[in-house]
Amino acid sequence: MAAELVKNFVGRTVPAEVNGKKQVPYLGNGKYRPEGHRYGPPLVCAEDYPADGNKVVPNLKEALQAAGLKDGMVISTHHHLRNGDLVANEVFKIASEMKIKDLVWFPSASFPCHAEIIKYLDDGTIHHIEGSMNGPLGKYCSMGKMRGTAILRSHGGRYQAVEDGEVIIDIAVLAAPEADAFGNANGLHGPSACGGLGFGLADSQYAHKSIIVTDNLVPFPCIPMQLHGNYIDYVVVVDKIGIPEMIVSGTTQITKSPDRLLIAELTAKFIEAAGLIYDEFSFQAGAGGTSLSIGIYIHEILKRKGWRARWSIGGTTKYSTQMLEEGQLEYMLDGQTFDHNAVESMDKNDNHYAISVFHTYDYHSKGFYLSMMDVVVLGATEVDVNFNGNVITHSDGLLLHGIGGWQNCLFAKCTILPIPLFRNRMPVILDQVTTLVGPGSMVDVIVTERGIAINPLRKDLIDKTRHSGLPIKTIEQLKAEAEAICGKPAKPELEDDIVAIIKWVDGTVIDSVRKVKTK
Amino acid sequence: MAAELVKNFVGRTVPAEVNGKKQVPYLGNGKYRPEGHRYGPPLVCAEDYPADGNKVVPNLKEALQAAGLKDGMVISTHHHLRNGDLVANEVFKIASEMKIKDLVWFPSASFPCHAEIIKYLDDGTIHHIEGSMNGPLGKYCSMGKMRGTAILRSHGGRYQAVEDGEVIIDIAVLAAPEADAFGNANGLHGPSACGGLGFGLADSQYAHKSIIVTDNLVPFPCIPMQLHGNYIDYVVVVDKIGIPEMIVSGTTQITKSPDRLLIAELTAKFIEAAGLIYDEFSFQAGAGGTSLSIGIYIHEILKRKGWRARWSIGGTTKYSTQMLEEGQLEYMLDGQTFDHNAVESMDKNDNHYAISVFHTYDYHSKGFYLSMMDVVVLGATEVDVNFNGNVITHSDGLLLHGIGGWQNCLFAKCTILPIPLFRNRMPVILDQVTTLVGPGSMVDVIVTERGIAINPLRKDLIDKTRHSGLPIKTIEQLKAEAEAICGKPAKPELEDDIVAIIKWVDGTVIDSVRKVKTK
Repeated sequence: MAAELVKNFVGRTVPAEVNGKKQVPYLGNGKYRPEGHRYGPPLVCAEDYPADGNKVVPNLKEALQAAGLKDGMVISTHHHLRNGDLVANEVFKIASEMKIKDLVWFPSASFPCHAEIIKYLDDGTIHHIEGSMNGPLGKYCSMGKMRGTAILRSHGGRYQAVEDGEVIIDIAVLAAPEADAFGNANGLHGPSACGGLGFGLADSQYAHKSIIVTDNLVPFPCIPMQLHGNYIDYVVVVDKIGIPEMIVSGTTQITKSPDRLLIAELTAKFIEAAGLIYDEFSFQAGAGGTSLSIGIYIHEILKRKGWRARWSIGGTTKYSTQMLEEGQLEYMLDGQTFDHNAVESMDKNDNHYAISVFHTYDYHSKGFYLSMMDVVVLGATEVDVNFNGNVITHSDGLLLHGIGGWQNCLFAKCTILPIPLFRNRMPVILDQVTTLVGPGSMVDVIVTERGIAINPLRKDLIDKTRHSGLPIKTIEQLKAEAEAICGKPAKPELEDDIVAIIKWVDGTVIDSVRKVKTK
Repeated sequence: MAAELVKNFVGRTVPAEVNGKKQVPYLGNGKYRPEGHRYGPPLVCAEDYPADGNKVVPNLKEALQAAGLKDGMVISTHHHLRNGDLVANEVFKIASEMKIKDLVWFPSASFPCHAEIIKYLDDGTIHHIEGSMNGPLGKYCSMGKMRGTAILRSHGGRYQAVEDGEVIIDIAVLAAPEADAFGNANGLHGPSACGGLGFGLADSQYAHKSIIVTDNLVPFPCIPMQLHGNYIDYVVVVDKIGIPEMIVSGTTQITKSPDRLLIAELTAKFIEAAGLIYDEFSFQAGAGGTSLSIGIYIHEILKRKGWRARWSIGGTTKYSTQMLEEGQLEYMLDGQTFDHNAVESMDKNDNHYAISVFHTYDYHSKGFYLSMMDVVVLGATEVDVNFNGNVITHSDGLLLHGIGGWQNCLFAKCTILPIPLFRNRMPVILDQVTTLVGPGSMVDVIVTERGIAINPLRKDLIDKTRHSGLPIKTIEQLKAEAEAICGKPAKPELEDDIVAIIKWVDGTVIDSVRKVKTK
């Protein structure tokens, strides 16, 4: 591709056009204001749907045909079945057999189980992917093998793109652990139970055609209705939509690494010392090993103080569920449910409340929850001395992760990145991140096993923790310590070709990902 | 007004243009297909909303000013506070004080408590009303006193008009018995508890600006979220949004009239004889005295047979709540909650599930629940020998009622109208209804205290009840019996002026209401 390149607000070079569509470079927060109206799908009439409410068609192929599948369409899926998903691959297998070409896959995320998609990128069925890529597909993209340019968005950015009409979904194929023939669906019950289905909400509301695929059809009404049949065109019943043990883990694991445990402990101590935790506070912690540990420390602080968190957003697990049940957390707002305990909790406990990225993360909404949140704890593959963060590429330049809710979470009142100072002898703090996914002005604290760096913009946090006894250092000091041990890291070897762009939460382009040099 | 008049599919004369907007005459069901896209309100950006989620403004006047209230705007309200609503009058009182002119009031229904609105129609603040009118306002309209032409829609038709962009709501003012500062709201808790808030759903989603007015502000998050703060611009806290005893009745009353009880009993017997009731069937019965009685009879039949209804739609009361609790009803889908028991049930019982008119009634949706329903029992002010029904005008021509969900319910598999053969010595079965609100082809059975008439189109029902021993008669026989007692009814004395139009569920015009002659 030879599109014109422009420099954006954070100094990154990004293309002015991608896949034939004009792009707006990142202008700084609040500077790009969308014009026009929220997208509305074509008007429909109930007379075109079965009066008895039975939208079941014999199989997915017939549903796709009825939905008018043709070359060039945008096909969306959600990722609630995670690495156990059996539906997305099947969609493109059918499309490939039908000799359909140039589709755009618009998943809310992809996992290693979607490596089969490479076949359909190779044979021309899929032109490119717009969505978070995890593992093999990211690597494929990094190698420059995808015909089109990948577009990565945050979870909230995906909702924004759909509601703005930036992405028009032709067909949404929505896996549902429980559904009725009218298309009402939830993720709470059945062999493939996964908890909430919030990542499919935008798809169901805005897609021109929506297909529910379930292995657990129940009589109308399927309650609760996380997705509403009034938005659904067809229902397909299959033997199996997912591999249960890959959808939710039986037990989510806290980290056993002594370094990671130290990072978790330092993070919790920082949160307490800085006064970020208080009675009725709010927080989001993820389901990774270190995050889980931090959650446990927070739980302990609350118990010790006799406090209660008012609300959290999950990524829910048995640990956050425990906090809810033991009374240290009042409301658990859940966009994604990670283990069996959490699925059961969502089903039984009214204070464990299913929400979607529209509510928590959508920047083109009348406010969103994340900006009200006291503390968010996030990961990163790299940060730089300006606190810019990278979560998608590794230091060798390979795109191996999606953005997830990472960008959206930066809007919290305090954003903390607990990260190891090096991984496989590669320093994690650099002069400049390989890919800039979030601007440094929004990252407040970096916690490593050898010290804590506070963003100079956060004078309040610096003041509050000055006499805490915690190992507060400058980010340059941390970088120097890492380099003293591992040496100055080599830059990744990249070509000029842009293989992917990274969108900011407002639909503008914050960075580009370049092809990794192969020898 | 001197707009061109056209004859529609059911032979009624309707204006080609109303309030300066072109109208489509009713063409028959499924004949008018909407073109274009679902309406989308202007895009917004979270940067324009407080990052801490606090949208509270000092009072309703400031909220209206902030929302840009100006001449000619469309202002919507919901009717969940029924005859106890204190919010709608206040909106127009403020507008009147601000010398705002020519507003359109777009309520989901109005009640006698809204008689004060007449003042704001008289002083020019309001140009006309688009919405169901109950009592004084309907009478005012009938007398030709409203400057613009009233537009009456069914509950489902109101959602359709909003999603089609036929009505663009400038400002929605949504009373909420419980809300947080972000604008999440429900009707379950607090001094003005009313149950669900589903009639405000379209307003919150599609209005350009939405204001929540509450007398019970709780800390974020307000759970459950029947309305979502992501759609809300401002929150106003007032002392009192409603008069509790007028919002929900302490006890809903079954009829004591021997004639009405007989009609209820005959209706239940007919339902049983025609095989309309069976294990796992579905039904909707209203909250009027006769309907409640019918519900109790249905409950008894289910108990006797050892059956259970799978789902019902309410208008919920302590009687339907009892059915749910005693196990003769599995799911109670609730669009409107009429008494204290029902409010409490919705709060406590997961099988008592809040839904909205979008789900049950919306004709421009991918199907709606009502067409799946086995039996619906409805009222009527008049029917005619062709089974056409009227629910809005009386035989003197006065517009005194709204359409409610009546038109939408005609889509059920069997529609039964239990009505007295005469009211105040005025026969209810006529040669021609004063106002045609629903076409006779969709009305299946009329049950009176002197016999039951089955629509000749429903040969199946005629066959099934032939040997039932029930007093099955032709509608002409029933009409003759009434006239033998009361004499031939006089026609209402009407002028040519059209004071209101009646929309069908698809947005076309099914009839006009004419000015009542005053001497």
